[in-house]
Amino acid sequence: MSVFDEDTAVERLDEESWAGRVTSRWNVGSVPNGGYVLSMAGRAFTQALAHPEPLTVNAFFLAKTEIGDARLLVESMRTGNKISFGSARLIQGEQEKMRVTAAYTDLGALEGPEYVESGPPDAPGPEHCIPADMLQVEFSKRFDIRYLPAYSGLLEGERMDRAEFVAWSRFRDGREPDALSLLLFADAFPPALFSRFGVTGWVPTVELTVQVRRRPVPGYLLCRFRSRYLTDGLVEEDGEIWDSEFNLVALSRQLAKFRIPETGRGGL
Amino acid sequence: MSVFDEDTAVERLDEESWAGRVTSRWNVGSVPNGGYVLSMAGRAFTQALAHPEPLTVNAFFLAKTEIGDARLLVESMRTGNKISFGSARLIQGEQEKMRVTAAYTDLGALEGPEYVESGPPDAPGPEHCIPADMLQVEFSKRFDIRYLPAYSGLLEGERMDRAEFVAWSRFRDGREPDALSLLLFADAFPPALFSRFGVTGWVPTVELTVQVRRRPVPGYLLCRFRSRYLTDGLVEEDGEIWDSEFNLVALSRQLAKFRIPETGRGGL
Repeated sequence: MSVFDEDTAVERLDEESWAGRVTSRWNVGSVPNGGYVLSMAGRAFTQALAHPEPLTVNAFFLAKTEIGDARLLVESMRTGNKISFGSARLIQGEQEKMRVTAAYTDLGALEGPEYVESGPPDAPGPEHCIPADMLQVEFSKRFDIRYLPAYSGLLEGERMDRAEFVAWSRFRDGREPDALSLLLFADAFPPALFSRFGVTGWVPTVELTVQVRRRPVPGYLLCRFRSRYLTDGLVEEDGEIWDSEFNLVALSRQLAKFRIPETGRGGL
Repeated sequence: MSVFDEDTAVERLDEESWAGRVTSRWNVGSVPNGGYVLSMAGRAFTQALAHPEPLTVNAFFLAKTEIGDARLLVESMRTGNKISFGSARLIQGEQEKMRVTAAYTDLGALEGPEYVESGPPDAPGPEHCIPADMLQVEFSKRFDIRYLPAYSGLLEGERMDRAEFVAWSRFRDGREPDALSLLLFADAFPPALFSRFGVTGWVPTVELTVQVRRRPVPGYLLCRFRSRYLTDGLVEEDGEIWDSEFNLVALSRQLAKFRIPETGRGGL
């Protein structure tokens, strides 16, 4: 079993609650990655709701998750023909750490018009891109990330001219991407501001939304994350994820706080 | 009292519940606009939470709201120094119509670094722009919308080359914008697809998130809404709202379904 499937596994306790275990394998520093704990809730939804795959999922991060047991309390809010809605709370001890609201669907059954005005970044194949680990944290070990050649100087201290990362990514253990795992990939890159300014602080997520558009085909995912507006220490990060056949598979947006660790206050 | 304040007013019933009344003055066809009912929940939060203004607010629209009484059940999830988190359910009869999750703050107390890579559209003042009502619905009467001169042919059947609207907007009754009303302005334009294709269908919102960055100064708001990816009948709409001094005051994104009314199925 893949590390992702093992570490997001949940066991049903009763009609409304599931048990999971937050492992340290997805830590960024001492804190489990938000996309990882969101994926655990996402997996509970696959069992609790009438439809199998995320369509759009929103998470508010109320407090830091800790390594260890977690309970997921899942509420089915409404079941429609094509979409089911649910809410989940991730609890550790007596404290709620994350609140998730979700619409689930059967992605294979979606049909309707197409009209696309934008496309994936112009990128050479992963074999021509640069494996790199900007953050050198436990979390990074789970992924095989290949940055575009334009990022070759970044690890030596060069800075890009804008707050954007573009790279291929997949699980290092070869587990293929599916709709559920897109909840993780949407939060699996260094903050886009680090492309412009280097590793200058920490950037905790307040709230994250992931729209899933399609089941990814096997292979690397081509990911673009960009920040345009850092105001009063708050920044959005917009993600676009394509699969290896250049189908758009997900859009994401988060609001994060930009902090310098020494003071806990905003930096730059 | 302004129409907006009157129609979003809520009365506290007990510790956790508020009463409101959904009026027909914000209808798009027979359905109250999503941003309007979201604003009613947003007002309940201003009374229920420890902080006064929305920072980021997410809403899932579970079922059509109807004209008439509504109950708002508000839960305070966590109160921090700078941010309070809450959840609200809008109920009519016995049915939940909308689920909202929110982070509230004191926008005036925010401070931190600024770094901006993008800016407002290049727009002449509202007095040089075009008052127009594309949809001719009750909702439109609440606003004074001034489209950029480039949109002058749109009402005569011309189509733009992309799915984007840019316009100034304010309340027609002169009520000045504040942080709360941005929840409405983020959903107060015709769907961006109509710019490219005309009024071709209806576009119900599945889920909407609004990030508020700053209190708007008085005057018109400069708004840009764009859709780039319509896939399988699903489309995102990304909004950016600036105040009359060109400060970024909000970012929004929604996921909507694109439908042709005759069949209820996706069109174009």
